[in-house]
Amino acid sequence: MSDIATSEYALTTESKLKNFIFSALQTVGVQQSDAAIVADVLTAADLRGIESHGVARLESYYVSRIRSGKLKATPHYEVVRETDTSIVYDADNGLGHPAAQLAMQRVIDKAGKHGAAFGGVRNSNHFGIAGYYAMLALQHDMVGMASTNSVRYAAPTYGKDIMLGTNPFAFAVPTAREPAFVLDFATTTVPRGKLEVYQRKAKPLAEGWAINSSGQPTTDASEALKGALLPLGGYGVENGGHKGFGLGLLADIFCGVLSGGAFGNSLPLPNSAPQPGVISHWFGAFRVDAFRDAASFKRDMEKELNDFRSSAKAPGEERIYVAGEIEYEKTNYHRLSGVPVHVKVWEGLKKLAADLGLPFDLAQ
Amino acid sequence: MSDIATSEYALTTESKLKNFIFSALQTVGVQQSDAAIVADVLTAADLRGIESHGVARLESYYVSRIRSGKLKATPHYEVVRETDTSIVYDADNGLGHPAAQLAMQRVIDKAGKHGAAFGGVRNSNHFGIAGYYAMLALQHDMVGMASTNSVRYAAPTYGKDIMLGTNPFAFAVPTAREPAFVLDFATTTVPRGKLEVYQRKAKPLAEGWAINSSGQPTTDASEALKGALLPLGGYGVENGGHKGFGLGLLADIFCGVLSGGAFGNSLPLPNSAPQPGVISHWFGAFRVDAFRDAASFKRDMEKELNDFRSSAKAPGEERIYVAGEIEYEKTNYHRLSGVPVHVKVWEGLKKLAADLGLPFDLAQ
Repeated sequence: MSDIATSEYALTTESKLKNFIFSALQTVGVQQSDAAIVADVLTAADLRGIESHGVARLESYYVSRIRSGKLKATPHYEVVRETDTSIVYDADNGLGHPAAQLAMQRVIDKAGKHGAAFGGVRNSNHFGIAGYYAMLALQHDMVGMASTNSVRYAAPTYGKDIMLGTNPFAFAVPTAREPAFVLDFATTTVPRGKLEVYQRKAKPLAEGWAINSSGQPTTDASEALKGALLPLGGYGVENGGHKGFGLGLLADIFCGVLSGGAFGNSLPLPNSAPQPGVISHWFGAFRVDAFRDAASFKRDMEKELNDFRSSAKAPGEERIYVAGEIEYEKTNYHRLSGVPVHVKVWEGLKKLAADLGLPFDLAQ
Repeated sequence: MSDIATSEYALTTESKLKNFIFSALQTVGVQQSDAAIVADVLTAADLRGIESHGVARLESYYVSRIRSGKLKATPHYEVVRETDTSIVYDADNGLGHPAAQLAMQRVIDKAGKHGAAFGGVRNSNHFGIAGYYAMLALQHDMVGMASTNSVRYAAPTYGKDIMLGTNPFAFAVPTAREPAFVLDFATTTVPRGKLEVYQRKAKPLAEGWAINSSGQPTTDASEALKGALLPLGGYGVENGGHKGFGLGLLADIFCGVLSGGAFGNSLPLPNSAPQPGVISHWFGAFRVDAFRDAASFKRDMEKELNDFRSSAKAPGEERIYVAGEIEYEKTNYHRLSGVPVHVKVWEGLKKLAADLGLPFDLAQ
């Protein structure tokens, strides 16, 4: 199941991990209900195998920014626009996760009453995995959608300036049995972290991942880290790079421009100092029974997904996964066998615990 | 402006092209209002430079299928589900364009009243370019969305069976000045027609476009035409092929499964005989002022798009286009200088005119 080298990872449990994140955030002044949401979102990422978006970011993205006053521990989330089918929050430079959870919950409530709704959050911060919020719609027999803009890492098609975040979109669709269909993808070919991993291992990148600082395609990780990521589809238009660019720009429009937040050139570059509350999010939900009976829909979803799962495999391949299936299986595996935390992250958490005067008992 | 070899093209005008399509469809029994919509959608595709989806398909996709009784000239479009914020039609195996235009118009009406709405159409046929329907929302200061499933051409990630159509998504976002942001993209790397062009020219394909019938990546156009297209992102997961696969499957879910129409394995293969009314569509719209004042939003959209347009170019590149800009400029150019129709298509239309007893005066 797991594709990780176990010697590089220590194991914890879901509840210990949540408790640690919760305690660390409370210690720096985050109120209980907000700390619990951040703990849930970050733990969900580690359970789903998306370790880049889990507890690995607790210190650098959240705790240290609160301690240095760059992110507010006790923000006042304000509704700046509301209709029967929409809601927009100003997150007041608070943590992104509670603001996003609140906005998506209100979108779901409104869609429950009116069939469909959308929402936005501006002046926010990094909110973790987009899929978490889209998935909140599932238990209500709704389709959920979520997106966020981010610090800039990517160049537009035929450009060389760093202009776009990894700007993910997530879509969650309910099924009769788990796992649901959960598509959660960055609109760049790969995340920036992947370039760093390849640099450490001195491996060449695949073509289509990045350009150097002159704007030319490169497979050299060090050159790429001084350049920019490429949109899904790669360099130019031959393999559809303009489609990935269009999707990334759409995310920036839906999140930044629609919410009245920061967008485009106003978003920070990766090596600039963290800027207060410049990230924006977008959410949507609609009831399945606005289209047809939900039970029949969910039964047909099983047939749809099984048609793909059971179709013929390419040479050497044993399995076809549909979106969300790997993450669901990893979650089950990690709940049973322990949640892996990279040893470097583990050491960082030990140091954080000492700094905050917290006990460190993450070992499962 | 135009990237086409003029010797291979004859020129017509927008009104002559529309009139010809309108007359041809009326002659085979399509009622005036429906024929006018199809003429508008097909002409819009030729104006926008998407010649694969324009008048080139008039005979093979529409007229011949009506004449052979495979597609109904006078269908009864029936509402099968309706709420304040949703509508689903059964198109009764009629032309896709009028059914889609009707559904999107109703979605826009409902979003006008309630802020957001979605719609579907089942038992339909090919509806032309998805962007046409998304763009109907623009004049109402709404974001428009459209998708369709299609005849199957593509394999899932790690699969070799032909399972998915080119399943486009289109998103249209209003701006203060034209052109609007219009992202309209197939979720495969390239359309099947591109493989045929490369086969004729005996050119190798780019990697990431297609697999052969054994499921292995190929750059041989003839082998690829016996195999399958690949999702946006190409073969496997290295360049994000699973993202394109996820988007293609999402389109099939939104169109086929949500509308209660055909989906997955039930959709026809390219070389099978045309099947009656198995295509489904999906639409959505929401008001910009559900988020913020529409005039301010549209002004910020100008800044957003200009930030990208004016960013630094990659070596050898002179211009960065945002989604919808090329198609807008082509439309203006073709309105001024004539609408190009490939000579092979032109000869086909001449023959069609003779068959239907219509005058042929397309030359501008």
